[in-house]
Amino acid sequence: MKKGITPKSQDYNKWYTDVITKAELADYGPVKGTMVIRPYGFEIWDRLKNSFDTRFKETGHVNAYFPLFIPKSFLAKEAEHVEGFAKECAVVTHSRLKTNESGDDLVVDPDSRLQEEIIVRPTSETVIWSMYKKWIHSYRDLPILMNQWANVVRWEMRTRLFLRTSEFLWQEGHTAHETEKEALEETKRMLDIYQEVVEEKMAIPVLTGTKSDSEKFAGAEETYCIEAMMGDKKALQAGTSHYLGQNFSKAFDVKFQTKDNKENFVYATSWGVSTRLIGALIMVHGDDKGLRLPPNIAPIQVVVIPVINKEYDPDKFKVYIEKLITEMDDNDIRYYVDDREQYTAGYKFNEWEMKGVPIRLEIGPRDINNKQAVMARRDIGEKETISINDSFKTIQSCLINIQEKLFSQAKKFQEDNTFTVNNYNDFKVQINKGGFIRCGWDGSPESENKIKEETKATIRCILTEQNTSNLKCIYSDKPAQHEVIFSKAY
Amino acid sequence: MKKGITPKSQDYNKWYTDVITKAELADYGPVKGTMVIRPYGFEIWDRLKNSFDTRFKETGHVNAYFPLFIPKSFLAKEAEHVEGFAKECAVVTHSRLKTNESGDDLVVDPDSRLQEEIIVRPTSETVIWSMYKKWIHSYRDLPILMNQWANVVRWEMRTRLFLRTSEFLWQEGHTAHETEKEALEETKRMLDIYQEVVEEKMAIPVLTGTKSDSEKFAGAEETYCIEAMMGDKKALQAGTSHYLGQNFSKAFDVKFQTKDNKENFVYATSWGVSTRLIGALIMVHGDDKGLRLPPNIAPIQVVVIPVINKEYDPDKFKVYIEKLITEMDDNDIRYYVDDREQYTAGYKFNEWEMKGVPIRLEIGPRDINNKQAVMARRDIGEKETISINDSFKTIQSCLINIQEKLFSQAKKFQEDNTFTVNNYNDFKVQINKGGFIRCGWDGSPESENKIKEETKATIRCILTEQNTSNLKCIYSDKPAQHEVIFSKAY
Repeated sequence: MKKGITPKSQDYNKWYTDVITKAELADYGPVKGTMVIRPYGFEIWDRLKNSFDTRFKETGHVNAYFPLFIPKSFLAKEAEHVEGFAKECAVVTHSRLKTNESGDDLVVDPDSRLQEEIIVRPTSETVIWSMYKKWIHSYRDLPILMNQWANVVRWEMRTRLFLRTSEFLWQEGHTAHETEKEALEETKRMLDIYQEVVEEKMAIPVLTGTKSDSEKFAGAEETYCIEAMMGDKKALQAGTSHYLGQNFSKAFDVKFQTKDNKENFVYATSWGVSTRLIGALIMVHGDDKGLRLPPNIAPIQVVVIPVINKEYDPDKFKVYIEKLITEMDDNDIRYYVDDREQYTAGYKFNEWEMKGVPIRLEIGPRDINNKQAVMARRDIGEKETISINDSFKTIQSCLINIQEKLFSQAKKFQEDNTFTVNNYNDFKVQINKGGFIRCGWDGSPESENKIKEETKATIRCILTEQNTSNLKCIYSDKPAQHEVIFSKAY
Repeated sequence: MKKGITPKSQDYNKWYTDVITKAELADYGPVKGTMVIRPYGFEIWDRLKNSFDTRFKETGHVNAYFPLFIPKSFLAKEAEHVEGFAKECAVVTHSRLKTNESGDDLVVDPDSRLQEEIIVRPTSETVIWSMYKKWIHSYRDLPILMNQWANVVRWEMRTRLFLRTSEFLWQEGHTAHETEKEALEETKRMLDIYQEVVEEKMAIPVLTGTKSDSEKFAGAEETYCIEAMMGDKKALQAGTSHYLGQNFSKAFDVKFQTKDNKENFVYATSWGVSTRLIGALIMVHGDDKGLRLPPNIAPIQVVVIPVINKEYDPDKFKVYIEKLITEMDDNDIRYYVDDREQYTAGYKFNEWEMKGVPIRLEIGPRDINNKQAVMARRDIGEKETISINDSFKTIQSCLINIQEKLFSQAKKFQEDNTFTVNNYNDFKVQINKGGFIRCGWDGSPESENKIKEETKATIRCILTEQNTSNLKCIYSDKPAQHEVIFSKAY
């Protein structure tokens, strides 16, 4: 019943949505802007979640759960935070429905109007800092290193599955520290963890750096980010880690008694990654046949498919793959034996290619006679006949190779499409062709805004590793304050 | 700073809240009715979640995620469902805030009023069946065995941490089947899993059965439940599994093509357990010193505390416990070495007793000289001097013993407080003293309602194992249709 996927080259956006719906990663929910994460997509998220969570715990963080509902007045407490966040959000105003007079419909009961409207959390700084106010009194109570896995809501009318939906899943870490130094170290530590998981598990190379004032988190002193290049050469912000200074502790009056018996406001960080990462996974590795999943994050790493014809003998097949199955079990290789008889081999090949399973093993009666199997790699599309006796070892090393290959391919793509330009004309020409532009910026919001107005490109990050000697601002020609990456972005 | 816990005997409700706040399981959120689950409480929930999730997956279920927001009109589709659920809920009516005219406050932007109001999910049958409508066409698409871990909202003004809060965390399974038989088997399978986890992990004995029509889930044909007795002899519904028949498939028009090429509505189940289970854990096992956690669910199973005095030598202590630590690591025993120097031994003993850690190991300089340690059991409060060389084995078998002991103690309490009565006067006398009453019921809503009005007791369950021969209804004296458990309940 499924039709093919629109080719990337023909319509990138359509291709993206086709992959998601046809690989059954997600679907549109009934309320505009909402998304259903289907089991295959959810399992990818679950694996990502576990990879992050393990590292959070190794670095001393604990999980907790804070309420979905925030009093409207809380959002007004941190001035910059309001500006950046309070505008588009879900507002709860009533607490009861009732049957209407004609008895045929449900209406909102006007008597249930709330005294103060409630906001569905767009992020939890305010509700969490209202609790920290209760829990933090002394340096003995610090640091607090908490994280929560939760749903958040930011009203969006232009839905894009995984990338832009009203509700999405994420983790948000919120930490409280005695000193600026400790909080800054925490901010960078979490950025390192983000980079590590995204590069090692998802095979997505990232650039690291900080945001300009106009792009940073509302309420942060400094926003650190990881930035990735998608298959259409646009940038995607893949994770952010914020140094909040004392902004929220001051807004919520969270002071602590220091070791030398003085009083000070607490220093804070917050950091998050979301289901948007799945969008990145699709756009970085996907091709015209669908997903290509890095083995480290794939729900199924190997699919084993018997060729079902007149000669097919299920018992014989079972015995034939027994050793391989045992070895895969013992080594935690995630596999699926697709011996469903109601589907043709062609249908199955197509389905698992769409779903991005890294390795497919085809086994026909002739293979059994020759003690072999045909191994097909999803990443490069090559087929190879391998010995069944060594098949586990061959598969194991092939999975490692696929993981590396996907990373190096994406890395090369990113490097090949990152350009250094020296004048604004070249900048404008290149930005229309796509890719990242590495150049100087004078640090002024004026230059940044003009560039954005004229080209739609934004500063994706002020690079961690940079060299500004003799560098000039690409727009103003003044001496550069920073070396930055400009790009169009999601 | 922490004061003691109010004794159970003095004020059960106060005792319950004291345990939660002083063991730092949870706290009140800023919006009335909401709860913050603190890290220690959240870790218990996480362990419970993993125990359930493993069993869900073993029985073929997959996780997914459906939207938080439900169109108001969906709730009106299944008539009984509306009656039971739609009344008290969070209604989203607007999607934007703006700064007021004087520029000093945030107000709801009247222009952002939604065309159709949105409900924050109280449960997800409606939104899930609207998706199943898109996904189910043929018997080949069945069964669908999905579960989600999510937050849900039911407006509550009388908050009781874990037991009754506006927002709570739970899992909700939603399955779709070809036949009534298959769906009924699923309903019972999930009830068995609930019983297994609650009894084996939480050491809470439960009764199983079905609900009367007045107590069953709005929209279900039959509600199966597990029911537990709390420390004050009241009942708590600990989990429910619903056979939904074709109610939701008819409401959402979900038909499928059968194997013999006909058309039929899908058969459904739904089942859930929530963070309310943590309330049960506290009330079943807690005592005047705080929590008593069953080892199988305890975040920390063993706390090792050095006696810190003049003779204390951290290096020597470390060497002394090295073998035990290695053995605990190798066997996945969850332990914490509390060598914090800023707290007294008394403070630590009190803290870990409050937090219900099953075993405490105290080690002083004299113990080191004698190659021993003092092992204190949280469940029965006894202390024992044990050999350090055998300490791992002693601890291991003690943990098993504590788990069994907590279960058998709770089981005995439940049995001792379950009474069989033969006439309504005895019923009324006994129900005021507390406990479960096992008796006959004629099956009529009239008798059930009268008993509820006159005694506040409800039918907790129609017992799975029952004998109605010669049994009469406790209220009407007519022949009993069912043998049931009556009790006051949370």
